[in-house]
Amino acid sequence: MEKMTLKDTVLKLTADKKYKAIREVMSVMNAFDIAEIFEQLPDNKRPVLFRLLPKELAADVFVELEDDIKEELIKSFSDSELAAVIDELYVDDAADLAEEMPANVVRRILRHASPDMRKMINEILRYPDDSAGSIMNTEYISLRATMSVEHAVAHIRKTGFDKETINTLYVIDKGRHLIGVVSIRALLFAAPQDIIEDIMDTHSIIFVNTLDDKENVAMTFEKYNLTELPVTDTEKRLVGIVTVDDAIDVLQEEATEDIEKMAAITPSDKPYLKTSAAETFAKRIPWLMLLMISATFTGIIISHFESSLGALPILTAFIPMLMDTGGNSGSQASVTVIRGISLGDIRFRDILRVISKELRVALMCGAVLAVTAFAKVYLIDKFIMGKEITLLIACVISATLLVTVVIAKIVGCSLPLLAKKIGFDPAVMASPFITTIVDAFSLLIYFWFANMILKL
Amino acid sequence: MEKMTLKDTVLKLTADKKYKAIREVMSVMNAFDIAEIFEQLPDNKRPVLFRLLPKELAADVFVELEDDIKEELIKSFSDSELAAVIDELYVDDAADLAEEMPANVVRRILRHASPDMRKMINEILRYPDDSAGSIMNTEYISLRATMSVEHAVAHIRKTGFDKETINTLYVIDKGRHLIGVVSIRALLFAAPQDIIEDIMDTHSIIFVNTLDDKENVAMTFEKYNLTELPVTDTEKRLVGIVTVDDAIDVLQEEATEDIEKMAAITPSDKPYLKTSAAETFAKRIPWLMLLMISATFTGIIISHFESSLGALPILTAFIPMLMDTGGNSGSQASVTVIRGISLGDIRFRDILRVISKELRVALMCGAVLAVTAFAKVYLIDKFIMGKEITLLIACVISATLLVTVVIAKIVGCSLPLLAKKIGFDPAVMASPFITTIVDAFSLLIYFWFANMILKL
Repeated sequence: MEKMTLKDTVLKLTADKKYKAIREVMSVMNAFDIAEIFEQLPDNKRPVLFRLLPKELAADVFVELEDDIKEELIKSFSDSELAAVIDELYVDDAADLAEEMPANVVRRILRHASPDMRKMINEILRYPDDSAGSIMNTEYISLRATMSVEHAVAHIRKTGFDKETINTLYVIDKGRHLIGVVSIRALLFAAPQDIIEDIMDTHSIIFVNTLDDKENVAMTFEKYNLTELPVTDTEKRLVGIVTVDDAIDVLQEEATEDIEKMAAITPSDKPYLKTSAAETFAKRIPWLMLLMISATFTGIIISHFESSLGALPILTAFIPMLMDTGGNSGSQASVTVIRGISLGDIRFRDILRVISKELRVALMCGAVLAVTAFAKVYLIDKFIMGKEITLLIACVISATLLVTVVIAKIVGCSLPLLAKKIGFDPAVMASPFITTIVDAFSLLIYFWFANMILKL
Repeated sequence: MEKMTLKDTVLKLTADKKYKAIREVMSVMNAFDIAEIFEQLPDNKRPVLFRLLPKELAADVFVELEDDIKEELIKSFSDSELAAVIDELYVDDAADLAEEMPANVVRRILRHASPDMRKMINEILRYPDDSAGSIMNTEYISLRATMSVEHAVAHIRKTGFDKETINTLYVIDKGRHLIGVVSIRALLFAAPQDIIEDIMDTHSIIFVNTLDDKENVAMTFEKYNLTELPVTDTEKRLVGIVTVDDAIDVLQEEATEDIEKMAAITPSDKPYLKTSAAETFAKRIPWLMLLMISATFTGIIISHFESSLGALPILTAFIPMLMDTGGNSGSQASVTVIRGISLGDIRFRDILRVISKELRVALMCGAVLAVTAFAKVYLIDKFIMGKEITLLIACVISATLLVTVVIAKIVGCSLPLLAKKIGFDPAVMASPFITTIVDAFSLLIYFWFANMILKL
């Protein structure tokens, strides 16, 4: 895939206004690669090059463009050009477009869509943003159980031309209820006079409901290794299909959202470089503010024990190390459990197994860290660096580490599961609460041990 | 999908030894759902139930089981049972199995595979673990350019029966070089006497090389919305195909790995509940140790400024808040950039745009946090809580916050890109280095402002 050269070529041809050559080159390229080139073109060149594309390829390229470029292109379209592009779009892509564009552009899109397309777009737009209905395609091929294979093939040849996929055919009854599925492979292996009813798969058809969460839909694809999935309404009537490319997008979005939430960022569905600094600021500041204010607790605890620190100032130097280690131990546990929940590997009913495992891991980690810290503090800090460290101070630090790591891991692994249980988002809950709780605990334990062992 | 009831039913039937009923129930179920039930069966029941499954379904269920259960089942198989299961597996699944099992089980598997299967398994095993070759399937349908459509369909009916997918057919020349692709749709829409050469797609065929990184292969699926992808050797000879279900697994694995690395955990490809406490400990302790030791720097800095803290003990109370806010600001930036790199949204050439954007975000975040902290410290802490805070102390805290946030965001966004540039893993580099650098900076800045403004 020597894409760089090709891209440079088109950019050069554009600069030289060699439009005929550009048309030739683009007509043998993939839509995605052309879209990538479009993003790098100067604004005023895009409408010119877009008009050079064959009709069907133009629609494919259009779908791959970023939202702002789509909007700007639509503004450059004549009414008939707009109608031509919309007509070539798959209905799920057209509905996505209507969801992403500002209201005045959407009105223009709907005005120039064919009545059929307009009806289908409006139907998809009815479904909530995170539902199966919002990502489905209402164009699929349906068969009747009484058709012969020959008749079915003729039907596919007649109606399948503009469908996104024809690898699976859906068998419905008169009430449009989904009663079976036939793969194109089964059709190919059957005899022309075979009846669909006899070759269709009727048991354990995997389907989803229009209102199912799109994350669950994507997980269904992953679980059952599917490439498409029928969507039915509450009366089990077939209304559309979801294809695997949309499922992949959902899985990637969900992973990104989890990652953002764990890093205390409000998720955004725009690519980083397309988001303005003000938008990025708005996604980050509430969490920074919340975490800063919750760090006040640690300040209150330290102030409360100011006299202990005054009596033995060396204790202050270990506070960041103890809090950091607690925080790191907690986030290792919480992040592992949150991802496990997202992947469906860990459920609430596993909570006791999870806690018991984290307890064992925490005791091992805590013990190793305690011994290391003891050696480091007592040997290196005292004898090599010459600090005023007693055996008892080293004991306080080691004991604090052990207990902090245990508490951090238990809090870290159980809070996400409890959050999930009571209906909160595990990833959102985890970050601020776990940090605050673990920070406060590590300080309290430190001062408690210091007062008890060192009699401050 | 009322799976719970079905699962309970099978478990009950198993307890009652109603094997005939179980066979009936299982024969209309999905392989994945049966596998889920198998995981919950007592160990001694699994071989019994497995023998009740029809041959093809048995292989599908086998593939979905966890590694430890697969191993235990293989041990219970007679030689002929083992041969039957292996014979039904797709070759990529058989190769996966050989990769995951202990050496003695692998020897037994290879001994009982058919000579053809053994050859194909060995071929796939030759490729590095993270390459396209290691996840490809060597069973696909190839056509000759000179075939008629009628001939091609007959060929598919003859050879396509046990192939994983027949939705795309691959056209090769005498040297097995990939010269075109034909979709099953194109075949269906063509006339019987049409020649493959005339209906095949020859330009811009998307393919990958056996040695390409499997992460790039998965990204290619996502980019071009594919359901399968041909794999060629260095001489462009077709050697296999990758299917979208494997690409989804790779994308999910990569997202999990990124998340684990960001949380300072060595990635593991086993599900959490299947990993022993000792293994989990081993994945976590090196990072905890490294981070604890690197936190020593903060201790050194604090010790160095012990006299400043002694002169004004109230300063100690704000250390955790300042370090936490710096850490949070930095991780917001680093995590966003790391995910952007993984998704292909951000590249090294974007580094100046990224830094300029983070600078603007940081100035906004820093200003808001500085003003909030000033109000909180000067108004609440001083007047309501009655602490000894002067206007100048509040200024030191606000100024430190502003500068720390700016440095944290710049370090956080640029280190992952630099790591990527010099060939390191952005996610691995980010976590320990950024934390250490930002912690050290926030303390140095704090003490610098304290000494300058408060003349300590």
